[in-house]
Amino acid sequence: MSTVIATDPGAGHLAPPAHRTITMAHGGGGRAMRDLVADLFLPAFDNPALAVLEDQAQLDPGGLAVPGARLAFTTDGFVVRPLVFPGGDIGKLAVCGTVNDLAVGGATPLALSCAVVIEEGFDLVLLAGIVASMRAAAAEAGVSIVTGDTKVVERGAADGLFITTAGVGVVAPGVALSAAAARPGDAVLVNGPLGDHGATILVARGDLALETELQSDCRPLNGLMQALLRAAPGTRCARDATRGGVAAVLNEIAGSASVGIRLVEETVPVRPAVRGVCEILGLDPLHLANEGTAVAIVPADEAGAALAAWRAHPYGAGARIIGSVAEAPRGRVTLRTSLGGERLLDLPLGDPLPRIC
Amino acid sequence: MSTVIATDPGAGHLAPPAHRTITMAHGGGGRAMRDLVADLFLPAFDNPALAVLEDQAQLDPGGLAVPGARLAFTTDGFVVRPLVFPGGDIGKLAVCGTVNDLAVGGATPLALSCAVVIEEGFDLVLLAGIVASMRAAAAEAGVSIVTGDTKVVERGAADGLFITTAGVGVVAPGVALSAAAARPGDAVLVNGPLGDHGATILVARGDLALETELQSDCRPLNGLMQALLRAAPGTRCARDATRGGVAAVLNEIAGSASVGIRLVEETVPVRPAVRGVCEILGLDPLHLANEGTAVAIVPADEAGAALAAWRAHPYGAGARIIGSVAEAPRGRVTLRTSLGGERLLDLPLGDPLPRIC
Repeated sequence: MSTVIATDPGAGHLAPPAHRTITMAHGGGGRAMRDLVADLFLPAFDNPALAVLEDQAQLDPGGLAVPGARLAFTTDGFVVRPLVFPGGDIGKLAVCGTVNDLAVGGATPLALSCAVVIEEGFDLVLLAGIVASMRAAAAEAGVSIVTGDTKVVERGAADGLFITTAGVGVVAPGVALSAAAARPGDAVLVNGPLGDHGATILVARGDLALETELQSDCRPLNGLMQALLRAAPGTRCARDATRGGVAAVLNEIAGSASVGIRLVEETVPVRPAVRGVCEILGLDPLHLANEGTAVAIVPADEAGAALAAWRAHPYGAGARIIGSVAEAPRGRVTLRTSLGGERLLDLPLGDPLPRIC
Repeated sequence: MSTVIATDPGAGHLAPPAHRTITMAHGGGGRAMRDLVADLFLPAFDNPALAVLEDQAQLDPGGLAVPGARLAFTTDGFVVRPLVFPGGDIGKLAVCGTVNDLAVGGATPLALSCAVVIEEGFDLVLLAGIVASMRAAAAEAGVSIVTGDTKVVERGAADGLFITTAGVGVVAPGVALSAAAARPGDAVLVNGPLGDHGATILVARGDLALETELQSDCRPLNGLMQALLRAAPGTRCARDATRGGVAAVLNEIAGSASVGIRLVEETVPVRPAVRGVCEILGLDPLHLANEGTAVAIVPADEAGAALAAWRAHPYGAGARIIGSVAEAPRGRVTLRTSLGGERLLDLPLGDPLPRIC
């Protein structure tokens, strides 16, 4: 937390702050910023490491002191539009995204950082809501936000609010997930329906004049990943299927391991509403972003245990085996369609939706 | 590195990329983003942890396995305008700022992350230059950039480029710097002239129609901090005097330790050109931002050794003792002026300059 100071963090509370909008002074390193941090961020993220208010958080390394343990480290920037959408907001997304990047590597999240860039004039009650949402997501994931930074830019120099989180975690000795480890015969699992986040954002932007019950799948996956690793310790790798969707992560895995990945279309779970949105726009649900959907590559002999473990978890009730790893076509992903044909499932050039996360 | 994929990172190079500007596709998670990362970021930040291209970097915990060691974690967002200025650019700033936040806590930097938000239409040659600058600063600090994220927003939704870095480091057993530890009698040290960064940015914006030889002091302070801790192991605390300047960090320390801090104006090092800029604008050099200037609070009996250690370091040649800690006035900073008077040195409401870092 760079140059963030507060003489009495305990005095803050989450009630709507007295100032109604963000001013340039809130990012200036002086009294206004100190008060913003003390009134809004510190009480929400309350934890001993953050309360120290030095330029950096200092943490007990916990499991890192165990011989053979490794430190996992990741970051993600969030620029999603709109900031609030069914099933979440940019704050929930910023916490879940970074927790999930740690989790799919087999890491137990240890702590998060949070850096915000706020546009002058931003509504402080909306900001407080987004910060409360970060707190709730962090609490669910069992992780603390221990350090942060606040920058304010002039009206027109940013689109409301951007949040960048980083996360550190501990990878236990013996856990070594890697995309390059996928082998012919392995099963390809997903923990639930694809494309909910992408389709929700699309509908939330209002360009389609559609009403759906769709919600983003935004959620922390660390519990689900721990359940997978207990049930299927031979798991090769897992990925959080965000931008570019399941197609992007499977192409990545096929490339890294120099294997083919063959999906069976009728086993790929997609909600009817997502399928409807995709049909209207000519999109493929396998290209849509997810924010709480993992893909795992599991040896065939552990696939049943993995599937059962996911189905027993609240975030894995819709888990399916959607395909398998093959020798060929090397570096490619194919989809056997319901009509019996087979087509190449390529990486999109870009996400069909900008600013999806 | 979230959903960043590259089948052949070795194929990249730092030559100006084929595309001339950033497009929305460069942030979409597909082929365009993969190519941008492979051609521009990976070769610049080249290191084994980054080359793995999983969703998170995994690192040997190094000194964290030593009993009593702690993990330091910090983040900073950078929105400086202009992006390039005498003595540095946003890339150098983003690396040095996070290295310095770790260093002033007594931590040895272990690794950095880098998340960028880029405006559509941004010049790719300029981006490559900024990335090269990050590489150079990281090399100087002896730290690797091991994970990252790339987001692109539409033209007008951001001002060119924002960079958020986070950093992890190791605090050796026995090192426990804390602002609350300052005690009456301690000396207040700075490693060189104040306000160079703030004044340089002000002049670089061109509003003053001034020409100066001023350069930002932007530089990594981890070497300087290690030298201080060796020479003066009783050091109470140190701070990187960024937004709000030396006045802000000293007010913070005075508040945390419930002590007074008394500065002697004629001992405060300020370059004539910085003093000139401040006189024109009615600013106080003690309120101007620095990006490579540390304040340290050191027990009186170690102050001589600390000063000598800093003066022997390339980034401490201009080090001075600028004041001392006193019983009173509690929580306040005062300045004895050259004319013999004494005035309160308050925290500014905000930085006099928005977007200084």
